[in-house]
Amino acid sequence: MPPLLVVGSVAFDSIQTPHGRAENVLGGAATYFSVTASYFCPVSVVAVVGDDFGEKEMEVFRARGIDTSGIERAKGKTFRWSGQYSGDMNEAKTLETQLNVFQTFSPKIPAGYLDSPFVFLANIDPVLQLHVRQQVSGAGLAGCDTMNFWIRGKPDELKQTLAAVDALIINETEARMLSGVENLPQAAAAIQKLGPRIVVIKRGEHGAILFRGNSIFFVPAFPLEQVHDPTGAGDTFAGGFMGYLARAGDCIEANLRRALVYGSVMASFAVEEFGLDRLLRVRPEEIEARFQQFKAMTQFESDDFLLPTED
Amino acid sequence: MPPLLVVGSVAFDSIQTPHGRAENVLGGAATYFSVTASYFCPVSVVAVVGDDFGEKEMEVFRARGIDTSGIERAKGKTFRWSGQYSGDMNEAKTLETQLNVFQTFSPKIPAGYLDSPFVFLANIDPVLQLHVRQQVSGAGLAGCDTMNFWIRGKPDELKQTLAAVDALIINETEARMLSGVENLPQAAAAIQKLGPRIVVIKRGEHGAILFRGNSIFFVPAFPLEQVHDPTGAGDTFAGGFMGYLARAGDCIEANLRRALVYGSVMASFAVEEFGLDRLLRVRPEEIEARFQQFKAMTQFESDDFLLPTED
Repeated sequence: MPPLLVVGSVAFDSIQTPHGRAENVLGGAATYFSVTASYFCPVSVVAVVGDDFGEKEMEVFRARGIDTSGIERAKGKTFRWSGQYSGDMNEAKTLETQLNVFQTFSPKIPAGYLDSPFVFLANIDPVLQLHVRQQVSGAGLAGCDTMNFWIRGKPDELKQTLAAVDALIINETEARMLSGVENLPQAAAAIQKLGPRIVVIKRGEHGAILFRGNSIFFVPAFPLEQVHDPTGAGDTFAGGFMGYLARAGDCIEANLRRALVYGSVMASFAVEEFGLDRLLRVRPEEIEARFQQFKAMTQFESDDFLLPTED
Repeated sequence: MPPLLVVGSVAFDSIQTPHGRAENVLGGAATYFSVTASYFCPVSVVAVVGDDFGEKEMEVFRARGIDTSGIERAKGKTFRWSGQYSGDMNEAKTLETQLNVFQTFSPKIPAGYLDSPFVFLANIDPVLQLHVRQQVSGAGLAGCDTMNFWIRGKPDELKQTLAAVDALIINETEARMLSGVENLPQAAAAIQKLGPRIVVIKRGEHGAILFRGNSIFFVPAFPLEQVHDPTGAGDTFAGGFMGYLARAGDCIEANLRRALVYGSVMASFAVEEFGLDRLLRVRPEEIEARFQQFKAMTQFESDDFLLPTED
């Protein structure tokens, strides 16, 4: 199976939630994405880390069979992020961001990755996203993420990137901001006109929606009794979604729907513990069992009798 | 088929939304509920109206085959409500409430209704709800609604009512207020301990959840491009839910799930136009077609291959 390639951030996170805290733990979009996708398919990462990034951290990727030859080591410190969640934990309050070596990140795609059929451009400068996309121009499915910072700050560059990708995986607020439309189906339609034929809108505790052509598919969020740490949930979702598609090998509707469910399954595990803890420990049987739980929570049968027609 | 009995308010509503306004139109919980349920099963209404309630209004019920012999006519004016929706229209701002004849409403159940197997106690004083429940003690399925006013104002009386019903259909905010628990599955479990074995939590644009025993079932809201008037959506939902169950004749899981979908289908029609306009015009074929659209938006198949197990 050819690999799923992800380009994005690898970081050290410091996290506070009502349920505890974690200091300088391995994080970053490309990390959550690749660890998650590694349950489904071969994965390779393109990222940059500093000289504070040790063998211990690199081993986390290798232990999951992830190809780390695209992780560049630069002089300086690794990207560091510090955030706090409170109340309903729907949004993090950023306490500190140190871009460090990430500030001058210029993704270099190793020659062996250039024919990756599945590519995910995690949330980085849309100019870099487009640059990567042009290098892996043969990829049949290129997905990307973005954020309010780029939607506001580099709208034209972002539009060029969107015109070159197949799928956008984005949260509800960002979808509205990007499209300028409040109603989600209309927002998705407006985004599809910008390029991506597949639009996935993440709604946190309210699940996710898949839009392709005129088709809409809803999946709820898994009803957890407690969310310990939402950090990385969105990147984990994307990793499950793209990882399943890479494994399935195509984007027919049935696979896209299963991909949305696997994304939701993986995100539900991610938030059960701090940082990567739960994701690194989840077993394939647990993933399958939770997939079946999603099925049990959403499926119903048509009736065998129709309503009476009016007189 | 024995009738589904509903006890609740019949009113004149004045409504303002960003899409228009309607003055003194027929409304009230028992009205939305009974008009909706009438698409599924025979329905009878117990309510009170004033001497301003004319033949024209009564004919709305009769034209849908609804038994109005339990609609008492009292001296005075009919209950009047005036409200305004703005922004995301998730909640009405009440501009004026005139209880009028509803203030001294004491539901009288006609002898012919006492053996109704399906009963719905719409949002009225829990003391009255319990009084009705005791009169139709043979009903196999008694459902009820309530609101923040009673949860805060008559918590002990409400608990007595809940101990005597089978199903509670309530919105998200009220479920949290009633249980004192933020997490919805935990809130539903706490409410089940108070009596109702079936708990339905309505989440507006985020759909609805059915809890029974350890089983959970999610249905999304129908993705409408525009909501014109949310008035009566919750009562319409309850009318579709209870109406389908009365039609099906039992509460096996498959029927409860279909009932939740039919409730969502009917609510999605209700909000498309002002007041009862759309509900009075919807055709059974449209109801069935939208039911199938819900199916198409939520169903997925398991994969035929499993994830690789770890080495």
